[in-house]
Formats: sequence, structure tokens, C-alpha cells
Amino acid sequence: MSETQLFVKPPLLKTFLQALFQQTGMPVDDAAYSAQALVTTNLWGIDSHGVLRTPIYVQRLRTGAVNPRPNMRITGNDRALQLMDGDNGLGFVVGRAAMEQAINLARRFSIGAVGVVDSNHFGAAGLYARLAADQEMIGIVLTNVRPNMVAPGGSRPISGNNPLAIGAPTYGEFPFVLDISMSNAAGGKILLARQKGEKIPFDWATDRHGRPTDDPHEGFAGFLLPVGGHKGLGLSYAIDLLCGLLTGGAFQHDLRSMYAQPDDPSLTGHFMLVINPQAFLSKEALRQRLSDFYGTIHASPMWDRDQKMMIPGELEHQTAVERGRSGIPLSQSLVAELRTLGQDVGIEAPF
Amino acid sequence: MSETQLFVKPPLLKTFLQALFQQTGMPVDDAAYSAQALVTTNLWGIDSHGVLRTPIYVQRLRTGAVNPRPNMRITGNDRALQLMDGDNGLGFVVGRAAMEQAINLARRFSIGAVGVVDSNHFGAAGLYARLAADQEMIGIVLTNVRPNMVAPGGSRPISGNNPLAIGAPTYGEFPFVLDISMSNAAGGKILLARQKGEKIPFDWATDRHGRPTDDPHEGFAGFLLPVGGHKGLGLSYAIDLLCGLLTGGAFQHDLRSMYAQPDDPSLTGHFMLVINPQAFLSKEALRQRLSDFYGTIHASPMWDRDQKMMIPGELEHQTAVERGRSGIPLSQSLVAELRTLGQDVGIEAPF
Repeated sequence: MSETQLFVKPPLLKTFLQALFQQTGMPVDDAAYSAQALVTTNLWGIDSHGVLRTPIYVQRLRTGAVNPRPNMRITGNDRALQLMDGDNGLGFVVGRAAMEQAINLARRFSIGAVGVVDSNHFGAAGLYARLAADQEMIGIVLTNVRPNMVAPGGSRPISGNNPLAIGAPTYGEFPFVLDISMSNAAGGKILLARQKGEKIPFDWATDRHGRPTDDPHEGFAGFLLPVGGHKGLGLSYAIDLLCGLLTGGAFQHDLRSMYAQPDDPSLTGHFMLVINPQAFLSKEALRQRLSDFYGTIHASPMWDRDQKMMIPGELEHQTAVERGRSGIPLSQSLVAELRTLGQDVGIEAPF
Repeated sequence: MSETQLFVKPPLLKTFLQALFQQTGMPVDDAAYSAQALVTTNLWGIDSHGVLRTPIYVQRLRTGAVNPRPNMRITGNDRALQLMDGDNGLGFVVGRAAMEQAINLARRFSIGAVGVVDSNHFGAAGLYARLAADQEMIGIVLTNVRPNMVAPGGSRPISGNNPLAIGAPTYGEFPFVLDISMSNAAGGKILLARQKGEKIPFDWATDRHGRPTDDPHEGFAGFLLPVGGHKGLGLSYAIDLLCGLLTGGAFQHDLRSMYAQPDDPSLTGHFMLVINPQAFLSKEALRQRLSDFYGTIHASPMWDRDQKMMIPGELEHQTAVERGRSGIPLSQSLVAELRTLGQDVGIEAPF
């Protein structure tokens, strides 16, 4: 944790990542979007899903495990629910296309959804929820991942910590964006506790046999536990039902992990649901009501003066403003890794 | 907890409740459905949302706080997202009508949703998710309640523990039904700890000032905490956005509680979303895939032999089979309360 950090200006970072993606054969626009998505995620402070992941994405594009030029197609019916085949494209590219199509459906039908098969890891789910919010829509984003959570009492992973994101307009400086996974804690938090030599709560993780542990070493080598026990587990099942089962795609153990199976398509599914809030209310009425809603949250009194009542997405907005000025902090080891990734193909890092 | 219990046969109980509802002026069919909904909830073992609540529903119907003969109307647009005015009817009646309409929309558009304003407490959300599952649909049911949860660090309730239920077909003996609220623990569990003289975990509830407590007396007099901290809180905001804000209905503190404000319409909102899983797959393919999905869950190994891996809805199904034989256990005090409720209007309890 005490490793020196380099602060890199977002545009420099984006240009470099885009060049890396383009070199793999991705079209310019797709490469630009994917690069910006990673940078945006770091701007929000969600470092676990940002630039840190570049090496695995680029490696998979270079080997052809991920298709740099997917031929994405709507294969399902043409009513308010549609099916998209991602043709094994990078998750950012497929995710954006699916969300844009779901927004189109919501414009036509007031509500619309797109189920996606044959995609890959798409980074932070909040990226796509925000695409909807930026169009004054309510967006719900689901994706499935290979089982990494055990049920309480179980000895083997039974479901993924399948993320869920919800975006909604605020008509203010930043949209409402909730982005959560169905595990109690992220793997990164367990790693952090291990680095600090701290115990972890018993409801974060199990050892490799599924047994409760408060030892971060055992927990990191073991499995995640669902948030709220049966609540998070049940939601993770439902997300897999929508992303994988309903779509005719892969689910449960048929999914692949990009780290454990780097040479395989991940067979990831997504489900993008969009609701047009102007179906019932005028924009002016919505603006007023949303302002009341968020205002009530902000005005709610706190006994703990170290805590501030924020709405989902507010912390990310503040971090983005701050990092837009200071640059994005990258560890020396990540910087070295990125430089090497460029040098392999004759692209020089501008930092 | 050691109070003697009477085991009442479900049909007897249903007949009696139906008579109570009809006497308030409800149409026969609505009274029959509402009575069966309460009995079904007890059959599932969800006693906190079943017959126990009869007195408050009947009282509110008698005083006119709830409208026994609502004129429910579709007031919104006629695309895949519609708005329903519940005309202050009993939540069971309005909830059923809204879900039936959402199922119709899903038949036409493959996905459909109905936002509902001006309803009341509708019992267990799982009732309506199950209506969808029984029609081979995937149903998502949301409702908003008056704020009863504090944010960690907050000193006053900021959002309700807004329930969410998801139903899906299994083509087996019982459907998948997940029914969860956004608080970490139900009020009933805190009450139980108080009766047993046990401490409660610090993440269940706060005292009346929003401060953490492990004392069940203080916790019961205080407020609930959200499941997974910001995760459950964020989901509860999103549910209120969909049920209350988007629909033009009441949200946050404008909602009423049927216990705290028994003479007021509760202004409850609902959001019923239905997806037709046969949009993409044949029934035969779905049946096979669902069987694989649930089979994988059932076959997952357990290290804890006291735990059995079940799918959401399975425990409720087993309890219903058992209580269908043994009868529904009601406490002596509840039986006395029900008898009095009948005697007030000349209806004799058949138990």
C-alpha cells in the first residue's frame, strides 16, 4: 500500500490505452470508447475495475480469445425485449451497443430490455447505467460471472457475485448511479485486510472448504459470501436467470473467468433494462420531484459527523472532479506493466 | 413464544376471513382473493405477513381509510409501461390487478410493467411474483413503505425497507420465489431476540438516535439498518424511485404507515415488471435449462449437514405441504382477536 504512485492525466492515459486497443485490430471508435471507459472508472475511484485490468483485456484481444471486430447482431424478437449476440467482442463494446439498443426500445415502448449472449467482462456495470441516465432514462444493468460465492453452509461456489447497477437522472451535476455486487465484500477488501494484517468479519469470506473464517489469508484463498446471506444469494440466482438462462446463453459453471481461463471466450451474458421516466411525467415535474427526493436525502441529519449523507454516484462524482485535476494515481508496478504492454508492439507510453 | 397454539384448517380460516372482508363492502371475488392471500402467506410460513394482519386491514376497511370497492383505472400510456390508479383499494386487490395487467403487457410486448399509485399495504410481495410464475412468466414486484431505515451514521429514517420479490417458473412442483426486504433483519426478529433475552448483531438496528446497538429493547424502539449498508440502502432508494417518484405517486416521508396512521390512506406505490421467458426459447428448451439450473443448486455439496441447499421458494413450498396437513398455527391471542373481530359484526368464527 505504501508503493509510490504516479499521477497520470486522464487524456494521456486514454490516448495510450486507445492505441493499445487499436493495435489489436479494434475499430477506432470501439477502441476509443473502451479506453475512455477504463479511464472513467478510475476517475470515479473504482480502481479495481479500471486501468488495472488493461493487461488482461489486451492480452485476450491479441491472442484472439476476445474478438476485436465483433459482428454484433440482434437475433431475438423485435418487440420490447430483444436478444443480442455479442460475437465474443470486448465487453465494453458489446455492453455499450446493448444499452444503446435498450434505450431505443424504451423510447418506442416506454420500457425495453436487451438480453446479451456471447460477451465478455464489461468492466464496471455503472458505466452502462450511466449511459441510460445521461439520456434521461432509468437504466438497470445486470451481468453474470462464473460462480465465486458459496451459500452459507456450502463447500463449493454455487453462484457468481453477479453485479447490478442502476442509473437514474438527477438533472443536477451528476446522475444517480448505484453499482453493487452480490458478495458482502469485494476480493480487493480482503486483500487489503491481508496486507494490513487485520482480521476480516466472518460474513465476508470462507476458507477453501467453505467454512467460516476471519483470517484474511484463508479468506482470500477461499470463496466470497453473499451480501445478506440468502438475500444476496437469491438475487445472484435471479441475475444469472436473466443474463444467462433466459437468453439461451451460458450460466453457472459454464461461464468462464478471464483470469482462470484467459484463452477462452468468457461466454458472459448481460441484461440491460431501460425505463423512460417521461412516460408518465413531464420533464419539469420529474426535475422537481427528483430535486425533492435527493434534497431530502442530503438534508437528513447525521449523528456521526465523519459521515456525510450522499446519494449513489455522488462520491464517484467528487472523486472524478478531484482526479480530473490531480491526475489518476497509478502504482509504479502498474505503470511498468502498461509500458511493457506498449513496448511489445512499439507503442510508447506518454507517461 | 410458549403461548399455546391452535391449528386451524386453511379452508375454515379462508371462509372466515372472506366473510369479514365481504362484510366491509368488498365484492365477493376481491374478498375471496384477499382472504386466500393471507392464508397462503401463513401456509408458506411467512406468519409476519399473514392472518396476523387481518385486524388492521379490516379496521381500515370498516372506517373507510381503505376503499372496499375501488374503481381501479389504467391512467398512463398504452405501451409496454402503464400506470394504474388503485383508488385507495386494499393492496391485495390492487396488487393482483396490476400484476395481471403486467402479465398481459408481457404477452403483447415480451416485457411489460405497471406502475401503481394510491394503493395500500399488499402483504407479502411474493404473492404477486408467484402470480407471474404461475403463468410461466418472470415477475419482479416492488413496493415502497414509509422510511423505517437509517443510513449508517444517520440519526433519522431516510428510506423504507422496500421489499422486492422475484418469481420464475421451474416447471416443477413449485416456482422460484425470492421475497426479501432491504433491511438486514425484520422487526420480528428483533422482537424475538428481546423475548429470548438475546443480544442482536450491531448491523441489525440502531437506537432511537440512530446509534449502533446490540440491545434488542433499544433496537426495537429504534430503526432498522439496511442489508449490506450502502447496497441495501441504494436499492431501497431505487425501489422508491420506481414505485413512488416515477409514477407521480407518494415517496419517502409522504407515504403513510397503516399502523402509525391507521385512518389515512397509505398512498403506497407498487411496480410490477414481467418478462416472458418464451420470447427467446421454446418451452421445452426452457424446461430443460431450468431443470439444469436448479439441479446444479440442489447437487451443490454442503459441509454443514444441518443446512440443505434449497432454491428460493422451496422452504415455503415444504411448509405449505406440512401446514396443509396439520393446519395453520395461530396463537391464542390472535384467535381471540379474530373472534372478536367477527363478533363485532355478527360473524362467528368456525374455530
